[in-house]
Amino acid sequence: MSNRIYARYWIETAFPLEQAAAVLAGEQSSGTFVRVPGETDELRARSGARVEEIAELDTVMSPSLPGAGVPKGAGPAVYRRAHLRVSWPIENMGPSLPNLMATVAGNLFELKQFSGLKLLDMELPEDFRRACPGPQFAVAGTRRLSGVARLPLIGTIIKPSVGMSPEETAAMVKQLAEGGIDFIKDDELQADGPHCPFAGRVAAVMRVLNAHADRTGKKVMFAFNVSGETHEMKQRHDLVLAAGGTCVMVSVNGVGLAGVADLRRHAQLPIHAHRNGWGMFDRSPHLGMSYLAYQKFWRVAGVDHMHVNGLRNKFCEADESVIASARECLRPMFAGPGPGFTIMPVFSSGQTAAQAADTFRMLGSTDLIFACGGGIVAHPGGIAAGVGAVRDAWQAAVEG
Amino acid sequence: MSNRIYARYWIETAFPLEQAAAVLAGEQSSGTFVRVPGETDELRARSGARVEEIAELDTVMSPSLPGAGVPKGAGPAVYRRAHLRVSWPIENMGPSLPNLMATVAGNLFELKQFSGLKLLDMELPEDFRRACPGPQFAVAGTRRLSGVARLPLIGTIIKPSVGMSPEETAAMVKQLAEGGIDFIKDDELQADGPHCPFAGRVAAVMRVLNAHADRTGKKVMFAFNVSGETHEMKQRHDLVLAAGGTCVMVSVNGVGLAGVADLRRHAQLPIHAHRNGWGMFDRSPHLGMSYLAYQKFWRVAGVDHMHVNGLRNKFCEADESVIASARECLRPMFAGPGPGFTIMPVFSSGQTAAQAADTFRMLGSTDLIFACGGGIVAHPGGIAAGVGAVRDAWQAAVEG
Repeated sequence: MSNRIYARYWIETAFPLEQAAAVLAGEQSSGTFVRVPGETDELRARSGARVEEIAELDTVMSPSLPGAGVPKGAGPAVYRRAHLRVSWPIENMGPSLPNLMATVAGNLFELKQFSGLKLLDMELPEDFRRACPGPQFAVAGTRRLSGVARLPLIGTIIKPSVGMSPEETAAMVKQLAEGGIDFIKDDELQADGPHCPFAGRVAAVMRVLNAHADRTGKKVMFAFNVSGETHEMKQRHDLVLAAGGTCVMVSVNGVGLAGVADLRRHAQLPIHAHRNGWGMFDRSPHLGMSYLAYQKFWRVAGVDHMHVNGLRNKFCEADESVIASARECLRPMFAGPGPGFTIMPVFSSGQTAAQAADTFRMLGSTDLIFACGGGIVAHPGGIAAGVGAVRDAWQAAVEG
Repeated sequence: MSNRIYARYWIETAFPLEQAAAVLAGEQSSGTFVRVPGETDELRARSGARVEEIAELDTVMSPSLPGAGVPKGAGPAVYRRAHLRVSWPIENMGPSLPNLMATVAGNLFELKQFSGLKLLDMELPEDFRRACPGPQFAVAGTRRLSGVARLPLIGTIIKPSVGMSPEETAAMVKQLAEGGIDFIKDDELQADGPHCPFAGRVAAVMRVLNAHADRTGKKVMFAFNVSGETHEMKQRHDLVLAAGGTCVMVSVNGVGLAGVADLRRHAQLPIHAHRNGWGMFDRSPHLGMSYLAYQKFWRVAGVDHMHVNGLRNKFCEADESVIASARECLRPMFAGPGPGFTIMPVFSSGQTAAQAADTFRMLGSTDLIFACGGGIVAHPGGIAAGVGAVRDAWQAAVEG
């Protein structure tokens, strides 16, 4: 039984595959570009990364990324592609997320040996479950706080994203709550700007939502965007908690792993993870990090919800990729008892009642947040009609 | 006088340039994919992003990235490239780094309108200087703590990166100190693994360096890799400080902006920023973020040193790019009095005495750390000879 970290890469190289893989494994563990004193065979056996598997794929005649080297004097370069699986002993860095990232996604994207390199997935040993925060609320906790037992949480995003005052925001929230919505979020562009200060927004919005809850028994979940420095995020979290709010949101790429874990260790509310900037990591097929690997970092850091885009979205992502992402959020990262750090996927971007049936058919689950922007707010029949149409569509989808 | 944020992008699109630029500006400020109630002309004028300039470049016949859309019924697609400059009022998000990132590098890389999009640079208003930590030690503080007045700090990296015990590390540090080195750093793969626990490493290394300082008056600067969660980083910083150490190191991509700023607000020592993983952002010419934009985020968060690779490095980066990066670190981000958040560039990767003259000639400065790995540790004449050769080469370069 081995406590090793496994990472799977897509690679492209003009060098023999075994040689390129060995460079990657060496660079990311005990090796450097020359053999140095102290790098004994025993040390390499104990601490070196291990090439577990190389599965050759296709071949191309030109490099996908610039800057790659070619073997000396070997004639015209041919670039081989492969899936590569590498493993590390956890003893190299311990169950630490920032150091895991330096190991599996550090100084390797620039290696001359590669004209393409993408981290596709990783498997982490149990040590990470024990040492790292992980999700606190996830699906069950979110359903409990929102009072939505079976269907997806029908949600929306405050639009316009920026420019409205706290009072204007609260007035829109009132319409949405009266329209029967389950979930509302700040836009990722709205945090604590002077036009809409965080404290004022929380006070105005929660006044509306608390009154609505008193009247109807339903507490709409509002994900307040607390993104900022660590002390700001914790203060803002506490403000939301004290005002009776039930969710906070962070832009995970802007905040980073240490900041998200810091908030998670402090939090008494679910953390809604916004992945804005994710395209930088995953839009190239030849560089970066796939969503499969990416979302695992954030789950281990402790987020409860995570954006996956939506079917027929306004962005460039294909439907199959969206569903694969959502499935991954719902798949346990660890075997054994407990939910294994599963989280709730958030569908958004151009979502309306029209995507409900396909989303349910392709995902096979209702454990999700379904966020419609213009689809609800700009519905021709008004907000209540927009919410109703989306919920009816989900109800119909579930009942077949 | 306007407190606006300016960002410059390279874009590629099959749509008319003005139209694509307007979509980006709208998506990243007050717009969404349909016009919603509340998005008044007055709100757009106040909070909308502004397209400042579009400079058309070349044209290609196939898209650089997959997933891009094409205008309907317009015949075969042609992909125009351009430099685009966009601005935002600081009122949208305030001087907050995570929210700045959501604005200039958030939900735009996935827009269907673009088959390529890269953030090239940004200019920040004074508000960021006032609100954010910024570098605490930078060039002057690093020279003071290390006692190196004029030449670059001649440095090295502990190798093998991982696998050595604290005592083995300290034994190597002893050789390096006796060899006359100015600066040593942990490898980015070595943080607090069970083979080399952080506290044990600090104790063993500082015992050597303090004794050396007592004997010679020279305190070698050792950048201990404190990367981890926020509470861990602050504890480790305090351990280094208490032991008489003079520098801490973080893997900035793994830690993130909030974590780095949190450490900076606590720190009494310079923060050495390791950029491992940077290739993910900048290796593609068609996606991501250039080093020019990238390093500004970390400078504002408060790092003092930052890696720029080195001439004729073992990675894929060209010399011109390395020098442009180093120049940028030394160029003030803000006008007016004070160093304007300048930081000390760190040259590393395959560096030896051979690159000293060219580095000085191309950079025109000695305000840098020059880190040689195998170039010093594996020098045929031993470590002292390796250090001496590098220092002599710099001395000769400066004296012409």
